[in-house]
Amino acid sequence: MHDGPMASFVTHLESAIDGTRLEARTLQTLHEGRPLWVRYDLEAVGRAVDRDALAARAPDLWRYSELLPLDDDAHRVSLGEGMTPLLETPRLGAALGLSRLLVKDEGQLPTGSFKSRGQAVALSMAKELGVRAVAIPTAGNAGGAMAAYAARAGLDAHVFMPRDTPRVNQLEAALCGARVHLVEGLIHDCGKLVREGAEEHGWFDVSTLKEPYRIEGKKTMGLELAEQLGWRLPDVIVYPTGGGTGLVGMWKAFQELIALGWLESADLPRMVAVQSDGCAPIARAFEAGERFAELFEGAATVASGLRVPVAVGDFMIIDALRESDGLALSVPESGIGDWMRRAARTEGITVGPEAACCVGAAEELVRRGWLGADEEVVLFNCGTAQKSPEAMELAAAADVGE
Amino acid sequence: MHDGPMASFVTHLESAIDGTRLEARTLQTLHEGRPLWVRYDLEAVGRAVDRDALAARAPDLWRYSELLPLDDDAHRVSLGEGMTPLLETPRLGAALGLSRLLVKDEGQLPTGSFKSRGQAVALSMAKELGVRAVAIPTAGNAGGAMAAYAARAGLDAHVFMPRDTPRVNQLEAALCGARVHLVEGLIHDCGKLVREGAEEHGWFDVSTLKEPYRIEGKKTMGLELAEQLGWRLPDVIVYPTGGGTGLVGMWKAFQELIALGWLESADLPRMVAVQSDGCAPIARAFEAGERFAELFEGAATVASGLRVPVAVGDFMIIDALRESDGLALSVPESGIGDWMRRAARTEGITVGPEAACCVGAAEELVRRGWLGADEEVVLFNCGTAQKSPEAMELAAAADVGE
Repeated sequence: MHDGPMASFVTHLESAIDGTRLEARTLQTLHEGRPLWVRYDLEAVGRAVDRDALAARAPDLWRYSELLPLDDDAHRVSLGEGMTPLLETPRLGAALGLSRLLVKDEGQLPTGSFKSRGQAVALSMAKELGVRAVAIPTAGNAGGAMAAYAARAGLDAHVFMPRDTPRVNQLEAALCGARVHLVEGLIHDCGKLVREGAEEHGWFDVSTLKEPYRIEGKKTMGLELAEQLGWRLPDVIVYPTGGGTGLVGMWKAFQELIALGWLESADLPRMVAVQSDGCAPIARAFEAGERFAELFEGAATVASGLRVPVAVGDFMIIDALRESDGLALSVPESGIGDWMRRAARTEGITVGPEAACCVGAAEELVRRGWLGADEEVVLFNCGTAQKSPEAMELAAAADVGE
Repeated sequence: MHDGPMASFVTHLESAIDGTRLEARTLQTLHEGRPLWVRYDLEAVGRAVDRDALAARAPDLWRYSELLPLDDDAHRVSLGEGMTPLLETPRLGAALGLSRLLVKDEGQLPTGSFKSRGQAVALSMAKELGVRAVAIPTAGNAGGAMAAYAARAGLDAHVFMPRDTPRVNQLEAALCGARVHLVEGLIHDCGKLVREGAEEHGWFDVSTLKEPYRIEGKKTMGLELAEQLGWRLPDVIVYPTGGGTGLVGMWKAFQELIALGWLESADLPRMVAVQSDGCAPIARAFEAGERFAELFEGAATVASGLRVPVAVGDFMIIDALRESDGLALSVPESGIGDWMRRAARTEGITVGPEAACCVGAAEELVRRGWLGADEEVVLFNCGTAQKSPEAMELAAAADVGE
């Protein structure tokens, strides 16, 4: 089924902060401390593949191989990730005042979260470029995903996570053979240890946006969404935002689809970045009219994927929100249990605490009149509730009977 | 994408124990205390759909709608389940002495286990037949899956589980709004309470094999396997067996595919049912040459899905094993942690403790010479390790560092 070319259509990498052109096909990290975009020869992609030919390919993210950076399919590191369902959710929609609400359920991916998309492509590229050992700081699911893909790739893995990261994330990483380091502190403290270890031991740092390829994996959410909607896009995307790779990746995907002429309409969705008020650096910066976000002191939320007090891609997230006429907002941490219950009880979708915040955000935006009752809204469930036992206790402990 | 007919091809139900013909399209449970098969007009199915037309359908189990019992698509209760990846696992294979080992990863389904297949079809049929409330006894994952699909269907749900069922299963069922009843005892004790509640309150009992449709959902594993292998079947299937619905369902699927003429070869796989020696009623009965299994006293295994001391479909499992020249075997409970680590470290697949037993079984069968080194073997991971925290602790706690 994999009929991609034997060399990718990547032309170069491009600094997101100042446009500097950098060489692809060699290990790159940041430029001036900021992330890189992967750029493709989209005209050549358009000549090589027809949009409608994708339908015959296997239902995983590699169906978009012409828009992915891997040169040689033999380096593909895959656990079958991608083509998660896009579910109609009329009862949840009605509860929120929306007649056309959809949930894209990323909980149905390897290791139970959307982190697998980024890790699949990042680890494939690491393998292709000769990396032997990878390291990552993580607030939770990314560490488990990275460990799984590193095992699949045959690479050594080092995972640094806060000591109070959910136990399931600690165990899944260790199970896959990663060296798990528990750290007093938060994800950015872990990041510091990864940088030190990378210098000392030569590990390749696969932190969020610190190498160029996780974003390429995450952008496949946007490609799938377009394909699943018949090559058009919804009015609004509501997205739980920690490091923001997925939001930024989807926005990039939409630009590429426009350049390819694959979309039926050039109307792009308004992008909404959702955080908990327990850790809301992006929402705070957006509301203050800033492009860069300050460290959020005292970050604390049961939505561990949102516990990212500082994001190296802050300006990329905020740029996408503004370009799309979207916004960032935070919702009260105290609502998470109720929103998890609401989604699970109305639709049987066990959204994690991060996506629960999106349920709350959608409700708030309807209340404000920012979301129209008949707009088509896609909410992303970034990971399954079953991997957030603390949040499940919060949401459902009182309902376990005798 | 759903181009199935508006009435199913079901002709009747058939008692598995004595062949008695029973009416479909009305609520049926057991006959003489034993399960029912769903029978189709396979000639009509063959006229209505071409095997190769399936490729263009959505990647979920409803792509096989002509081989499913639902009359009206409007009653479909779906969370996007099906078309789980069939992964090549050369490193794990090499570790076991097998050159062609594949893993079908059922952990990538709604609620993280293959239970969603059975519940999707059972709850769709319950909805179609007018049921308002469902009840289930469960050793773990089936309860969570049932609660999710009941919520999706808008039905009331009652879940009975042993008090020591993993907490994640208790919570996920409660989160989805099911009434969760914790019981002193094992799954068959829970089953007794469900039967009483069903009589008293009119709940419909969706216990393993006690209604005819869970098996139809599970048989889609066999249909997918055939399609994913290009309409042929592997030499051997190694399957973790609690209630046995999946094994029996796949064997039924293969007969239907033969009748339809959809298989390139009539060679059917040898079916292997795997249990832990902590609860091995089927293995014990098979080895004793019996067709029916006695209650396994003192059942205890960390593989909660295998903690099924007595199976109403025992003879259906054992018949399939014998017809296929397969076998049942149990492996030592003490090996589970090591087999989980082996799969996760070699391939990044976080198999649950049930599938870990299959890893051990494959190794044992190679050692015995029963499995040839070059045979194509498909091992089923019935659920993700991330939903078995106790088993993950066992397998990986010692490897979580500082």
